[in-house]
This record gives sequence, structure tokens and C-alpha cells, in this order.
Amino acid sequence: MNFLEERILKDGVIKPNNVLKVDSFLNHQMDIELMDRIGEEFYNRFKDQKVTKVLTIEASGIAIACSVARYFKVPVVFAKKSKSINIDGEMYIAEVESFTHKNINKVIVSKKFISDTDKVLIIDDFLANGCAMQGLISITESAGAEVVGLGIAIEKGFQIGGKVLRNLGYHLESLAIVESMDPENHTVEFRETAVV
Amino acid sequence: MNFLEERILKDGVIKPNNVLKVDSFLNHQMDIELMDRIGEEFYNRFKDQKVTKVLTIEASGIAIACSVARYFKVPVVFAKKSKSINIDGEMYIAEVESFTHKNINKVIVSKKFISDTDKVLIIDDFLANGCAMQGLISITESAGAEVVGLGIAIEKGFQIGGKVLRNLGYHLESLAIVESMDPENHTVEFRETAVV
Repeated sequence: MNFLEERILKDGVIKPNNVLKVDSFLNHQMDIELMDRIGEEFYNRFKDQKVTKVLTIEASGIAIACSVARYFKVPVVFAKKSKSINIDGEMYIAEVESFTHKNINKVIVSKKFISDTDKVLIIDDFLANGCAMQGLISITESAGAEVVGLGIAIEKGFQIGGKVLRNLGYHLESLAIVESMDPENHTVEFRETAVV
Repeated sequence: MNFLEERILKDGVIKPNNVLKVDSFLNHQMDIELMDRIGEEFYNRFKDQKVTKVLTIEASGIAIACSVARYFKVPVVFAKKSKSINIDGEMYIAEVESFTHKNINKVIVSKKFISDTDKVLIIDDFLANGCAMQGLISITESAGAEVVGLGIAIEKGFQIGGKVLRNLGYHLESLAIVESMDPENHTVEFRETAVV
């Protein structure tokens, strides 16, 4: 079991309907030492990919993405979910349909910040059905840039996102893949992966 | 002129209606080396305050807050603007009225993550009229915690936020205070402060 899986068992809270709450250390309150360790681990897994940019989506991906980018010494770009005063000029906009809520969400990045020479590592905290990730990939490829890897802290292995992305041939690394959760017995089962 | 003022002059874009775009290095694409330098500078300014927690608001405050928290070796909490699946249980909710848009925005933090023993350093990228900051202060004080400092990257000195917070007696440190901007001549005037 790796450091993130251990932390999930220690501090994660399992709720009904496959909700895993990690808000005490990952996506509301954030443990900065853990972020550093996650950053280092993604660096080790993708260091041969000549990454030029780390891309994520607001809000909970930002902290992890910044930590990863510190190791690679490259800039972070975070996609926005709605157009704000801070984005003008030409934009890449991906419209992604949520599988669970049936609504359409936008993923927006200014065209200035991804170019056709970029090798992009996409980072996010969670992967479930992968809608946000699909939007980030679409934007990267619209820019003519290359997606050199996808790094996820926690993948819900029983939802389809990871399978779709691996089927499509992307190099997806998830630090913890949850196979099943049991809210009654407070147990989490992880997919066996290489020990970090 | 300090490092952030220099960077604003070099890469900031002045738009009409007092809009200063710093999206190439601060709040859409982020320069991680600059983030580290900002983190170190806030550490130097607040290191005697026995900070136990860094508080910010999604999304563009998160990167700076994480960098500050690395120096203090304390957790970051970021407030959310709407209730999500990731927040349940007891919450602090501040409703803040925007001066410019007249709408009401919510600032939400789970009660679990601020306690009455916390000494909170509040961090954000921009301070204009200060509505978000007022909400963050309100939440911190509702929790019985102490606001030991407010750290802002860029303050718009010609808007009222900074004056209000200083009048109220808070220890506010802004790394760059813009006194005026001229979109026609592409000039920015900064308030004279101690050189970093």
C-alpha cells in the first residue's frame, strides 16, 4: 500500500452512494507535505516525458498541479469552468456533458497559454467518469499540443473514466485506485498497482 | 520596486476600466518560481505571528496560499463559493454583497477545519473592494479563531478594500499596491512601500 492509499484509509470518510470524502487533506483542507509527496511521485512517473506545461481545472486540482509543476520547473495552467473577467481574447472552450447530472459543463483555457509545441501533463485530484479530463484533453489537442500523460490522485476504479482513457491509449497514472468502498464497515479496497 | 511590481510592469496588461490582467503569471497560467518567491515574502512578513492555518478562497488564491503554507508548514483551507458534494456537515457560510455587481456571493468553509485555537493567515491574489476578504474574516472570527494577518499579492489602492481593512486594524500586507493605471500609455503607478 502506498502513502496516499494509507492516508485515505486513515483520514478518508466513506459515505453512501460511493462518495469518498478526503476533504481533510486533499480538496478543502490541504496537507502541504502530502501535496509535495504527490508532486514528487508524479515527477518520478512522468519525468521522461519532457513536460513543458502542467494543466488542471479549478479548483481542487490546482494545489496538486502546482506541486507537480515545482518538480518539473514548468508553468501551471488551470482551466476555468465559466468565463470570467480574467479571460478575454481567444479561448479554447470544451463543452463536456456530465454522465451523472446530465448538465453541460464548460472547460475554458485562454489560447495564449497552450501552444502546438507544448507537451502537456494533465493533473487532477479525482477521476470518476472522466468528463473534466475529456474536456482538458480536447482542449490540449485542439491547440495542437501533445498530451504526454494524465496524473490522478484518486481514481474511482468502478466508474468508467479510467477505462475509457486507457482504452484511448493515454498514459494514465493514478496514485490510488479505489475498487470498492463499504460505508457500513468503513473499508476501502484498492486495485493492486506498483507500490510507490 | 520589488519583484512583483517589476513582474507586473513586464507582463501585466492594462485594460480599460481599471482591469489589470496578470493571467500569464498569477491567475490563469502560474509561474511557480514566482509563487515560491511570494510565499517566502509573506513568510518573512508574518513569521512572528505563530500562524497555524492559511485560509484562502477558490480558485486563484489557492496556488499562492499553498506556497505560503509550505514556508509555515501548516495546512491550507480554501473556502468554496458554492456548496458542493464535498462539503457536508456543519459549515460556516458568509454572505457577502458585491459592491460592483450587486449580487450576493457565498463564502463557505466546513466547521471542521477552523477551530478557536487557530491563528489564521488569510491570503488572496487580489484585493479591490475586499468583499471576499470580508467574508473570510467573518468566517474566521465566527469560528473563534484569530486573524493574525492578511496577505495580498496585488491591491488596487484606488478601491476601498485596503483602506477598510487597515481602518479595522487588521495587519494587511500587500506586495504590490497599484495607485493608478493608464491603459493608453501602458503605465502603472505603485504606492511606495518598503522595498522587498
